Amino acid sequence: MKRQSRRTFLASASLLTLGATAKGVPMQNEKSAIIHHVFFWLKNPKSTEDRDKLIEGVKTLEKIETIRAIHVGVPANTPARAVVDASYSVTELLFFDDLGGQSTYQDHPVHKAFVEKYGQLWKKVVVYDSATV
Amino acid sequence: MKRQSRRTFLASASLLTLGATAKGVPMQNEKSAIIHHVFFWLKNPKSTEDRDKLIEGVKTLEKIETIRAIHVGVPANTPARAVVDASYSVTELLFFDDLGGQSTYQDHPVHKAFVEKYGQLWKKVVVYDSATV
Repeated sequence: MKRQSRRTFLASASLLTLGATAKGVPMQNEKSAIIHHVFFWLKNPKSTEDRDKLIEGVKTLEKIETIRAIHVGVPANTPARAVVDASYSVTELLFFDDLGGQSTYQDHPVHKAFVEKYGQLWKKVVVYDSATV
Repeated sequence: MKRQSRRTFLASASLLTLGATAKGVPMQNEKSAIIHHVFFWLKNPKSTEDRDKLIEGVKTLEKIETIRAIHVGVPANTPARAVVDASYSVTELLFFDDLGGQSTYQDHPVHKAFVEKYGQLWKKVVVYDSATV
């Protein structure tokens, strides 16, 4: 019951904040989004220095005004399983309102400067773009 | 200036909602999270029926109490590029507070029922688990 009350309170409070939910982040049916998830494989995967430099670089992207949320990550310490790919070094997860927002990001000078300055660190990139349903 | 004022207002309002930001979703440095992103390739990738059935199945996962946010998606209509993998049919993106939350999810009866009921729809799954930095 206590949990329910807390949720109800937060659901009301969230009306102030552009559709944030009781859980603080939008659930999939509240607002459509374009989700852009990029995985980077470093040329020197054992270099903590290169990894940290790339993390620093990815974080510069948050200045781009069409990005609604950005999460920068490294492989989590979850149990190894055949289906889990933990071979990448750094990941960026971006939320946009729509395809236009993603397009603005791709062409943005901050994004181009990122690729220019940090692009020599990685040997492979895989991108997944999804639209919420 | 108008935009700035709006952001300032929202930043204040968000104090009410457990760390939601001016953008409505947590930025990466506010609160650590475990992000679990799963991509499904269907046995019958041309079957809209199978796709919709899987979407229905993935959405049952939101009942699991350790999930802080869930986004269910399909490939977005972004421009084709060599680095973009748009060959999957359905994706689920889940946020957990910590590794324990992810572990609870893996072992949860709702998750097991999902695999049991819908597992015959897919031929391949790729999972990326990341920890925010």
